[in-house]
Amino acid sequence: VTPVTYIPVQMQKQCVSAAERIRGKPYEAFFDTELLVPADRLDLIQRGPMPEAFHVRPNPVDVERSIREIDAFPDAGWALVDGSVAFVQSRMFMPGVTVEIMRWWFLWHANEPERYSLWFPHAHVSNTVSDRDRYQDEALSYGERLYNNTNTVLEYIGPSLVGIDIHFQSPEELGLNPAFIEAGGFAFNASAWNAPSFAPDTAFSLMIHLGRDTEQGFEFISRYWIGAHADLNRYPGGEHAPAVLETMGFGPDELEGLAYELSVHDMTEFHHLAGFLPDLYRKFS
Amino acid sequence: VTPVTYIPVQMQKQCVSAAERIRGKPYEAFFDTELLVPADRLDLIQRGPMPEAFHVRPNPVDVERSIREIDAFPDAGWALVDGSVAFVQSRMFMPGVTVEIMRWWFLWHANEPERYSLWFPHAHVSNTVSDRDRYQDEALSYGERLYNNTNTVLEYIGPSLVGIDIHFQSPEELGLNPAFIEAGGFAFNASAWNAPSFAPDTAFSLMIHLGRDTEQGFEFISRYWIGAHADLNRYPGGEHAPAVLETMGFGPDELEGLAYELSVHDMTEFHHLAGFLPDLYRKFS
Repeated sequence: VTPVTYIPVQMQKQCVSAAERIRGKPYEAFFDTELLVPADRLDLIQRGPMPEAFHVRPNPVDVERSIREIDAFPDAGWALVDGSVAFVQSRMFMPGVTVEIMRWWFLWHANEPERYSLWFPHAHVSNTVSDRDRYQDEALSYGERLYNNTNTVLEYIGPSLVGIDIHFQSPEELGLNPAFIEAGGFAFNASAWNAPSFAPDTAFSLMIHLGRDTEQGFEFISRYWIGAHADLNRYPGGEHAPAVLETMGFGPDELEGLAYELSVHDMTEFHHLAGFLPDLYRKFS
Repeated sequence: VTPVTYIPVQMQKQCVSAAERIRGKPYEAFFDTELLVPADRLDLIQRGPMPEAFHVRPNPVDVERSIREIDAFPDAGWALVDGSVAFVQSRMFMPGVTVEIMRWWFLWHANEPERYSLWFPHAHVSNTVSDRDRYQDEALSYGERLYNNTNTVLEYIGPSLVGIDIHFQSPEELGLNPAFIEAGGFAFNASAWNAPSFAPDTAFSLMIHLGRDTEQGFEFISRYWIGAHADLNRYPGGEHAPAVLETMGFGPDELEGLAYELSVHDMTEFHHLAGFLPDLYRKFS
């Protein structure tokens, strides 16, 4: 691992605010502002976009194929796909983390913005859950609490503060084949379709987070698409994405820049989370 | 030292072009795309702007004072000064580099864009010298060749490609006191006032590069201001800087962001240069 050498000014300032806000919380000791990233990822994301062989489209067939053939893919990468959608992919192993711990984290962190800030102190501003009572109801299953219970996050991706409505759903609801999930042993899922908070009826993003326990720790597989693509039209309002992107002033160059920023964000936040999550779980679960 | 963990997409692509362009040049072996930065600098520039005690204004009295008291200043830092000018400062020691070597570099690199790209392969696009014959005339002194012989550089500062007219001048022409230069033993100077290439008659920047030989190697002291400030009005067209900034859409937030970007750029390019310059000099001087 190696220290992060660049943090946008807005994120530097957000980290200062978050450090003040978290003071006195019982989990304050887990607020760590030293960001480290895996050194072996850098060459994968700092030397331009992935070649076309690794461009995956946001439809179930291509998603499943890319995960079945995961050993052939680089462990991290980004690209502009079909000229209109940012694509980011990553795979990491988290020693000491399990499916159970990661499920706990997804249900625990959203209850307070201070908890959310542990994950990425410089970038994570707040997370509001649509049906808070259901989210907190320990009599319900993970899926009953998380799925179709919108998380509205406010976070920096690079220098931009973005509001995103995250609609977590089961793999099946998102269109993945149950046989694929079962064959892969993906006991963990935090996949979703997303809308910008300013245009909540427009799906402009698909996010796949699947995980499984392995001997090297929790294997975490992520795929993100943000933008407009015919394959996103299966999600609510996906057909309005081109108009929303135009409102945002996002053409191909901006989308490609966003893909790289999101790749850096993903690498940073999940590596950071993996560092403190086992201890946090032991203390607060 | 530690590897750079973030490179804007535009700079990643520039590096690929530069690598192609330099092929076959006699100094191609010195083209190194692995960027490293000093780890002890990161906390100085990643935790917000410098406190006001270190805000230096771009006038000779304040510049000289800040350099006389240099041991009290952090070795790197940035800030928005007086709400209208980006300020960046740094100090580094370069083992194996001397005043003579650094003078040679400033006169050697500007003759071909490929040479300029050695310095920062991802960021440096081209450098055109106003009076090329004078620049190359080895019968003239360093100052006779460099001063008032405009370098028009095209380079990325962060994700932005900027054209800058660099007007190198002697310390005295820029307003510094000869007694200060002599007392400090600053045998090296590459200071300048700068204008945006799209508004060449408007000084919107002062850059101080002073150096001296020490037992720890070449000591290199840099100070940059970009923006509008009454103290810049001593340079040609400085009074038009506010209008130029407005054209650029640069308010206080953009200037502060630029200060940080320039701080990262300065740290990266001079550390990179220091790494290969002694060997390059031995081979090509």
